[in-house]
Amino acid sequence: MPELEIFSASHLHEFASRVFQHFGVPAPDANQAADILVLSDLRGIDSHGIARLRSYVSMLSIGRINPRPNIRVVRESLSTASVDGDNGLGLVVGPKANAIAMDKADHAGTGWVAVRHTNHYGIAGWYVLEALKREMIGWAMTNTTKIVAPLWGAEKMLGTNPLAIAFPGLEEPPIVIDMATPAAAFGKIEMAIRTDKPLPDGWAIDRDGNATTDPHAMVNGGAMLPLGADREHGGHKGYCLGALVDLLCGPLSGANWGPFTPPFTLDHAEPPRRVGQGIGHFFGAMRIDAFIDPTEFKQQIDDWIRTFRATKPAPGTTGPLIPGDPERLAEADRRITGIPLVPAVVEDLRFVAQQTGVAWE
Amino acid sequence: MPELEIFSASHLHEFASRVFQHFGVPAPDANQAADILVLSDLRGIDSHGIARLRSYVSMLSIGRINPRPNIRVVRESLSTASVDGDNGLGLVVGPKANAIAMDKADHAGTGWVAVRHTNHYGIAGWYVLEALKREMIGWAMTNTTKIVAPLWGAEKMLGTNPLAIAFPGLEEPPIVIDMATPAAAFGKIEMAIRTDKPLPDGWAIDRDGNATTDPHAMVNGGAMLPLGADREHGGHKGYCLGALVDLLCGPLSGANWGPFTPPFTLDHAEPPRRVGQGIGHFFGAMRIDAFIDPTEFKQQIDDWIRTFRATKPAPGTTGPLIPGDPERLAEADRRITGIPLVPAVVEDLRFVAQQTGVAWE
Repeated sequence: MPELEIFSASHLHEFASRVFQHFGVPAPDANQAADILVLSDLRGIDSHGIARLRSYVSMLSIGRINPRPNIRVVRESLSTASVDGDNGLGLVVGPKANAIAMDKADHAGTGWVAVRHTNHYGIAGWYVLEALKREMIGWAMTNTTKIVAPLWGAEKMLGTNPLAIAFPGLEEPPIVIDMATPAAAFGKIEMAIRTDKPLPDGWAIDRDGNATTDPHAMVNGGAMLPLGADREHGGHKGYCLGALVDLLCGPLSGANWGPFTPPFTLDHAEPPRRVGQGIGHFFGAMRIDAFIDPTEFKQQIDDWIRTFRATKPAPGTTGPLIPGDPERLAEADRRITGIPLVPAVVEDLRFVAQQTGVAWE
Repeated sequence: MPELEIFSASHLHEFASRVFQHFGVPAPDANQAADILVLSDLRGIDSHGIARLRSYVSMLSIGRINPRPNIRVVRESLSTASVDGDNGLGLVVGPKANAIAMDKADHAGTGWVAVRHTNHYGIAGWYVLEALKREMIGWAMTNTTKIVAPLWGAEKMLGTNPLAIAFPGLEEPPIVIDMATPAAAFGKIEMAIRTDKPLPDGWAIDRDGNATTDPHAMVNGGAMLPLGADREHGGHKGYCLGALVDLLCGPLSGANWGPFTPPFTLDHAEPPRRVGQGIGHFFGAMRIDAFIDPTEFKQQIDDWIRTFRATKPAPGTTGPLIPGDPERLAEADRRITGIPLVPAVVEDLRFVAQQTGVAWE
C-alpha cells in the first residue's frame, strides 16, 4: 500500500475554498462547496471528497461550470419547486435547492425539488444530514455520467445514480442510507486496476456485454452491472433503482438523463445528443410532525436501531450494521486524527496549487 | 408441470367479491378488493392474486381482519396525512389512503400518506397505476411479515417490503417499477420445494446463518437474503432498501415494523411483542405539472423508453426491457385468454366456496 499523508479537515477546507474562489466562486459558495467535499473525506467516502477537486478545477478553468450561477425557481406549487441551476457547481446549486425543499416542507408538510442544469453535487449524504438538523426526513438523489448497463444491455446507459435518505433517532444516532445503485463502487474497479487484481463476479461486463472479472475489460468499453448483476440474482431490480433515480432527476427536472448525461471530467466523450440541461438532482424533505408525534417517531427509530443491532449475527460477522454506522465512525475518528490522502491525490492537489497560485502548504 | 385450469377475470372477480361480502365486507369495498386481486392475476403476479383469497378468508373468519373498518385521517398537513386503517383489509384501506395522497397532490402539488393498522394490500403496482389515471407519478410501499435477513444477520428481520413507482408516457406505455427488495421472490423458493430443485446461490441462508442452496433449509428456520446477497455484491444496499421501506411504513405511521410485523397467514407465529398497530403502507402522488410541463415530461419519457429499448443487447438476450413490460404484456394476453390457475389454487378456492356457500362454478 502507498504511504498516506494526513491532513486536517480545516486545512483541506481552506485550500478547497480558496481554489474555488480563485475561479470566481463567491466566498460563501466556495465555503459551502468545500464543506461538502471535506465532509465526504471525514465520513470516509474518499472518492467524492477533495480527491475530486482537480476535476472541478478542470471544468471551471475552461468555463464548463459557471462560477456565479443565477439559481432560480422556474416552477412551483405549495410542496414542490423546479430549480434551474444555471450550470453552477452542484456543490452550490444542490444546497440551495435542498434548502428550498425544506422551506416548502415548513409550510406544506413536505417539499420536493427537481433540479436541472446542474453538475455533480458531492455525497448525497450531506443533503439528508441537513434535513436532520431541521427535524425532517431528507431525501437526495442525482443522476450521473453513464457507466452502468441495464440488465440485458451491453453498454453504459445509466450513472451510478445514488440515493440517500435519513431518519433521526432520539438517543441513538440517525439512520443514514446513502447508496449508489450498481453492484459495486467504481472506485473499487480503479483499485483493482492499480493492484492488478481480478474483480468479483457480478460487477462488470466487457465491451461485448459478456461477464468479466478483468477490470481492464470493464474500463475499455465495458460497463458496470446494476445491483443484483443478473436476472437470477435480481439485476432487474438494480436496473429499476438506477432508472428510478434517473427519471426523477432527468425528465422531471428538464435535465439530461441516461446515456446523455454530460461527463463529470474532461476525460470522457461528450454524449451524442442533448435531451435537457446539465445533470439533474431530486431532493425531498418531510416534516416528521406532519405524520406523527416526533418524539414518538424518534423513540421508534431508537427501538428499531437497537432491535436490528441485536440481530443474531451471521457466522464470521459481528452482526448487522445500521445504515450510516461506517460513515459516522469514520467521521468521529477523522475529526480527531485527520484525513489520510494517497500520494496520487496529494500530487493532484499540488498541481492545483501550482495552477491557481493558492498555497498548499 | 401440473395441468392449469383457465378462468376469466370476471369469474374470479365475482367469486372473490362475493366471498368478501359473505364476511360482512360492504359491496363497494368487496369489489375494490376483488379488483386488486384480479389485476394481480391479469398482470402475471400469480402469487399476489386470487391465490391469496384463502389467506384473507382465514383471517376474516376468525375476526383477525375487520370487514367494516372506520378508516380515518389522524393527522394531516397540506401535503400529508396519516391514516388509521382500523384493521381493515389492506385491499380496502390501501386504495382509500392512496386516493387521499392524490387529493392532497391536487391541491399541494404532491401528497404523501403513511398508513397504520392495516393488512396486506395486494400488488404495489395497482396503486401507482391509479396515480397514472390522474396524471400523477405514483409511489406505493408496504412492509410485510418478516422473511429477509439484514446483511450479516442470521435471522428474519424484514419483510419483502415492495416498492412501486410509475411514470406516464405520451405514445409509449408507462414505466411501472414494482419490485420487492430481496434477491428473489419467496414464490420461487416454494417452487423449488415443489420441484425438489436447489436454489441459486445468493438467495437464502439456513437457520445458522450460513449460505444455502437447499430450499428446505431456508423455510426451516432460515431466511431469504436481501438484493445483492453478500457484502461483495452489494447486500448492504438491498438491506438498506428493505429498511427504507420498513421505516417509512412502520415508525412514520405508527404501524409495526421489522420483526414485529404481524403475520399474513395463520401459519406463522405471532411476533414476540407489538411496537405499533398492524402493518404499514406509504403512498405518494406527485402532480407532474407541479414540476414541469406534462407534455414535455411525457415526450421525454417516450424518448427514454425508446432509447433504452435501443440499447445494444447483451449476448443471448434481446436487450433490456422497460420496467413494467412483462406485466403489461401478461395483462394484454390474459384479458383475452383468461387466467391460468394451478390445481392447488383451484382446490383452495373450492374449499373457500364450501366454507362460505358462495358458488364457485
